[in-house]
Amino acid sequence: MGMVGGGKDAFIGAIHRIAANMDGQIELVAGALSINEELARESGKMLFLPEDRTYLNYEEMIHAEAKMPADKRMDFVTIVTPNFAHFAPAMLALENGFNVVIEKPITFTIDEARQLKKKLDETGLMLLLTHTYSGYPMVKEARQIIKSGRLGKVRKIYVEYHQGWLSKLSEREGNAQAAWRTDPKRSGKAGCMGDIGTHAAHLAEYISGLKITQICASLNVVVPGRLLDDDGGVLLRFEEGATGVLTASQVAAGEENALKIRVYGEHGGLEWAQQEPNTLTLRWLDKPAETLRAGNNYKAWESSYATSNCRTPGGHPEGYLEAFGNLYHNFARALSAKINNEKPDQEWLDFPGIEDGIRGMAFIDNVVASGQSDKKWFDHVV
Amino acid sequence: MGMVGGGKDAFIGAIHRIAANMDGQIELVAGALSINEELARESGKMLFLPEDRTYLNYEEMIHAEAKMPADKRMDFVTIVTPNFAHFAPAMLALENGFNVVIEKPITFTIDEARQLKKKLDETGLMLLLTHTYSGYPMVKEARQIIKSGRLGKVRKIYVEYHQGWLSKLSEREGNAQAAWRTDPKRSGKAGCMGDIGTHAAHLAEYISGLKITQICASLNVVVPGRLLDDDGGVLLRFEEGATGVLTASQVAAGEENALKIRVYGEHGGLEWAQQEPNTLTLRWLDKPAETLRAGNNYKAWESSYATSNCRTPGGHPEGYLEAFGNLYHNFARALSAKINNEKPDQEWLDFPGIEDGIRGMAFIDNVVASGQSDKKWFDHVV
Amino acid sequence: MGMVGGGKDAFIGAIHRIAANMDGQIELVAGALSINEELARESGKMLFLPEDRTYLNYEEMIHAEAKMPADKRMDFVTIVTPNFAHFAPAMLALENGFNVVIEKPITFTIDEARQLKKKLDETGLMLLLTHTYSGYPMVKEARQIIKSGRLGKVRKIYVEYHQGWLSKLSEREGNAQAAWRTDPKRSGKAGCMGDIGTHAAHLAEYISGLKITQICASLNVVVPGRLLDDDGGVLLRFEEGATGVLTASQVAAGEENALKIRVYGEHGGLEWAQQEPNTLTLRWLDKPAETLRAGNNYKAWESSYATSNCRTPGGHPEGYLEAFGNLYHNFARALSAKINNEKPDQEWLDFPGIEDGIRGMAFIDNVVASGQSDKKWFDHVV
Amino acid sequence: MGMVGGGKDAFIGAIHRIAANMDGQIELVAGALSINEELARESGKMLFLPEDRTYLNYEEMIHAEAKMPADKRMDFVTIVTPNFAHFAPAMLALENGFNVVIEKPITFTIDEARQLKKKLDETGLMLLLTHTYSGYPMVKEARQIIKSGRLGKVRKIYVEYHQGWLSKLSEREGNAQAAWRTDPKRSGKAGCMGDIGTHAAHLAEYISGLKITQICASLNVVVPGRLLDDDGGVLLRFEEGATGVLTASQVAAGEENALKIRVYGEHGGLEWAQQEPNTLTLRWLDKPAETLRAGNNYKAWESSYATSNCRTPGGHPEGYLEAFGNLYHNFARALSAKINNEKPDQEWLDFPGIEDGIRGMAFIDNVVASGQSDKKWFDHVV
Repeated sequence: MGMVGGGKDAFIGAIHRIAANMDGQIELVAGALSINEELARESGKMLFLPEDRTYLNYEEMIHAEAKMPADKRMDFVTIVTPNFAHFAPAMLALENGFNVVIEKPITFTIDEARQLKKKLDETGLMLLLTHTYSGYPMVKEARQIIKSGRLGKVRKIYVEYHQGWLSKLSEREGNAQAAWRTDPKRSGKAGCMGDIGTHAAHLAEYISGLKITQICASLNVVVPGRLLDDDGGVLLRFEEGATGVLTASQVAAGEENALKIRVYGEHGGLEWAQQEPNTLTLRWLDKPAETLRAGNNYKAWESSYATSNCRTPGGHPEGYLEAFGNLYHNFARALSAKINNEKPDQEWLDFPGIEDGIRGMAFIDNVVASGQSDKKWFDHVV
Repeated sequence: MGMVGGGKDAFIGAIHRIAANMDGQIELVAGALSINEELARESGKMLFLPEDRTYLNYEEMIHAEAKMPADKRMDFVTIVTPNFAHFAPAMLALENGFNVVIEKPITFTIDEARQLKKKLDETGLMLLLTHTYSGYPMVKEARQIIKSGRLGKVRKIYVEYHQGWLSKLSEREGNAQAAWRTDPKRSGKAGCMGDIGTHAAHLAEYISGLKITQICASLNVVVPGRLLDDDGGVLLRFEEGATGVLTASQVAAGEENALKIRVYGEHGGLEWAQQEPNTLTLRWLDKPAETLRAGNNYKAWESSYATSNCRTPGGHPEGYLEAFGNLYHNFARALSAKINNEKPDQEWLDFPGIEDGIRGMAFIDNVVASGQSDKKWFDHVV
Repeated sequence: MGMVGGGKDAFIGAIHRIAANMDGQIELVAGALSINEELARESGKMLFLPEDRTYLNYEEMIHAEAKMPADKRMDFVTIVTPNFAHFAPAMLALENGFNVVIEKPITFTIDEARQLKKKLDETGLMLLLTHTYSGYPMVKEARQIIKSGRLGKVRKIYVEYHQGWLSKLSEREGNAQAAWRTDPKRSGKAGCMGDIGTHAAHLAEYISGLKITQICASLNVVVPGRLLDDDGGVLLRFEEGATGVLTASQVAAGEENALKIRVYGEHGGLEWAQQEPNTLTLRWLDKPAETLRAGNNYKAWESSYATSNCRTPGGHPEGYLEAFGNLYHNFARALSAKINNEKPDQEWLDFPGIEDGIRGMAFIDNVVASGQSDKKWFDHVV
Repeated sequence: MGMVGGGKDAFIGAIHRIAANMDGQIELVAGALSINEELARESGKMLFLPEDRTYLNYEEMIHAEAKMPADKRMDFVTIVTPNFAHFAPAMLALENGFNVVIEKPITFTIDEARQLKKKLDETGLMLLLTHTYSGYPMVKEARQIIKSGRLGKVRKIYVEYHQGWLSKLSEREGNAQAAWRTDPKRSGKAGCMGDIGTHAAHLAEYISGLKITQICASLNVVVPGRLLDDDGGVLLRFEEGATGVLTASQVAAGEENALKIRVYGEHGGLEWAQQEPNTLTLRWLDKPAETLRAGNNYKAWESSYATSNCRTPGGHPEGYLEAFGNLYHNFARALSAKINNEKPDQEWLDFPGIEDGIRGMAFIDNVVASGQSDKKWFDHVV
């Protein structure tokens, strides 16, 4: 793995490194860790990177690594820069034969995302989009339960993602995270909806197996002086007649990272909340509610998606880093199978990719357009 | 108290009797308990009503009681019939000098509600509208906390009321409750939104102290063959720039009576859920979340609204019947003060009345109109 | 119902009146509400008792009522005085043909309890001992589940009852409740173990269906200056080889009324906590945990004990007062059946009585003796 | 790091590798992973160990590594074999100048533990005992809160560790974990009390800062045919007059890994449960309960122990592996400081070591002796 961005003090870069590293299959071998030279060098040292693979920009890294022998050079490039700086390194990596791991939202514009898809189709390379929450074992279990039909036809989906960390104008108070995420030039058209609304939308589609078809959005700039939405609510219509509601907020003061989803079908419903991720609650019309618990010794439902994404037995809580690790682990196994010309297990392929990236960009475009419009229902065209 | 409707086997009539009776201040002395003569008589006997005050219809009851001496006759009439049969007995009661307790939604049409208001204004009589949930001590505490300004200016309100009991077409399977509540002729224009959406809207306004000013509603008939909405989502705008989302569903299979509200201000947020009603959670931007617990020994915040609506010390859970009892208890104390020409305590007057009833009817009208319209935002005109 | 003790400001008297009154079957008709004459009169007035049935002491009440015609006089006497003043009025009531409702612990000494039993056996009268917690629907359900054998043979019982209200020396700071409950002359040999330990022991035996056979107790006086135990732990052995642990504390600072029980059998376990009493959790060796919820529409298990002790559908929380009301309601129905020479339903007879009272007194005796002894295991002889 | 034991399919070996690896500071460079040659080789390959450092037994590994240059050889040896096979490799490692990481209970007998201490004292080498639960950030915070005196003098400690996985005689049904843990020859004198009771005792002492001084234990063999205790309860006395209760069970059918602790002082209490480890609840006599939440952005209390043991902001749950990783991370930082002759931060030294190991062995000895004795209180002599 070679990393673009994520120098020391960057939040998400460190997360990616722990996640990639978790199962002992992936090693950080190269990095263009900062556009600041000194920082790039320091970060490389801190991470025990050899000096000659501590690059000062991504072009240098990609070109240099491409020239190395196959068994030496990095297998893929991980891009953890702010949104506006996703596309260029991703495209260059693909052009030079490297697979790509990339943060969401995938690019700055949907057009860029479409160009990446085209290149992926041409090259046959692989891309992992880190919609972390789909890496949780009980999220995978939820998806399998819906798929199995046990809850009946899906009728209703509530998904919410509430944070409070932007309750003040922190972008003007030296918070670097806040600064770029609320800046249209670095973040894109949407603030809250791009940063966390896309996660919520992805999760709703991932678990329910249904695509959003129409939206009616109300976006708000709650904190005076902010340049992008920091809050919003969206009425949703899905395929097959299901409906739903998505809310996302970064001004829900006191909330940490409260992503929660509930899906109801004809016979019952399920509920999962990211902050207690090892529990999945099933409620039924005609019998007591059931509490499913993550663990690699989990036997209650026959799906192996949950168990194969756990490292410990039930009661030894795994969390966010492990979920993130699952994305990398599955990606690595799928990549390894491809490299070795083996048929990958279906479960290894269960990670978000370019299609999810394009849908996410369309969600941003459409939700912003809907938010500005007097028309009630917008087709969620992708 | 004289009761209209609520014969044996009626759900809400029995609830009203327990609630009214709870604090030993109110006695059932007369009843027109059923339009079925036999049932009316049987119910009267079951409730130890004297035969001569077991009436066969409300007109008879109101006229007969009106002729009795003041210290003998009932002090007020409680109306627990289906919605379409609220107005006539309520108006007749007022015309004959009786105060009124009435189930929500207050009437079949908003015009009827306005007529009741006019009559109340003329007569100076009192009316209690049983929005039960505003009787819970921690709901009252929540309202006082918002009022105190501790959370800062209110920014965001999420209120949800999810039930699952109409997940099947129960109205065709002999469920009497389901039958009238899904019948436009008996229930009114709205199903779910009238039955529980009004509770949610009332709770949001009651706790936040802010009125809804605009709505954007999506109503659904989820169960095929049903005549009224059984589900819906509403984007909300409130006074003073707050926004919110209201969801109500009676097809959230597996849910019981899941009413929950969250209100966020500049400095923190609060959360209350009806199914665990003795707990109120406060979350803060800059300090640990706090869990406030109901109890008549509760001292954490200085508001006496919570303590004076509790009968037991903390840890002895009170519930739905006690909340209901609080409405009656406060109403009875206010009524008694009025009868005795005393100044009532402010806390006794803290029960829902005719204005809430009219707002509820307007909510039904507007939410149905919005649901049928392509226009995004509807003014919530009352 | 005639009441001994429980004048205004008394905690438990008011609770008894609400509970007795809840289902509209029981009326307070007489009272010897205080040994203070003025207080007795004032309390009678406050409770709308007729002056001629507002008695100044229990002897007067019992003798006067006994002379009244059967259809006029009180059906039973409720005794809500401090422990030391239970026996005399109870015995006098029985001697005069009145049934008795009595607070726990039943008497001051076990010998008194045995005398009551003898008198009950002679007279055939009925006695209700208000171990409130056995009135909760989910406690009854728990008992039925154990009885059904679904969990297999019972192996392990953990019961805990933790309060914090005696964390300071409140008995010296004007807290009347604290004053008598920590006073050996009014409370008896045990403080915490008599007041709440007996509840915990009763609950363990009631739910498990097993009697405690041996104990090993450690009692503590935690707050300096206190005269009776305010805390303790007891290792338990039960019939049929089960074991357990009971802890009771009134100095668990910050706890309200945290009574909780867990029972494990060969195939699974159950958990119930009084502060969220409408939920009963079942955990299983080989399948997901189940959450059973109280409600009169509850159908998950076929036992009618839970449903017939609920007044509302699931999701409308009932609490402590309703559990208390269930004791009275069942007692009243059993009494009424007896008076009418009808065969009572088994469920009506499911309330604590004299045998529970004697076991409670023996628990106090034995736990105090064990606490003072160097011997490890004490036979719990009754 | 060189590892003894922990070949593929071993539970705890894999956990150790993930934990050691988590923060990118520790690398597995050598292993004697199994006493089965083939398994040792296969495991080495699976873990990308070079062939020449894939040893076939620990003697070989320690001797070979000792001969390597300092900058090449492993820095410490991690021992993850069953209990009976802890001492020999640990002693050999120390004798050859290697620091040691070792699973609990530290040895087979307390005498072995004392020998290790002697050798550590002689050599000045370091030892980490993996009492994992003390690595959780909110456990560290709990300890700091007690230390700060905010809760006042500690009065009461309840600690429980309940599992259900030995509810059947799994040791005879091919469960390898069960087989050695219930075998006196491999596990030691105690079963449940050694395996998890020691964790509970350690946690109680770690958080409270108080040593256990006396015990009164009841150990049970619940499942017929089992050779060691699978359940037990212990009354505890601590320094400074505090008392407590410890329960441990591996036959609490349906429980996963339910370790929970509650500590009460004069002014309030705290509660922490391993299965939801990111939450620490504080309850107070005179104000609302508080919920502290883990996160590296956590600012509520000034202790940096919690924040410096978190990798993510609040709401991104960390779990068991991260807690385990904290032990390794702190050990590695302390070791690195020592190697570089720097003064370690106090927080780095906050990991369990030889003294905890000796106390754990004494706990096993004393609890077994007490369980077999008729004497009530046993001094917990170490």
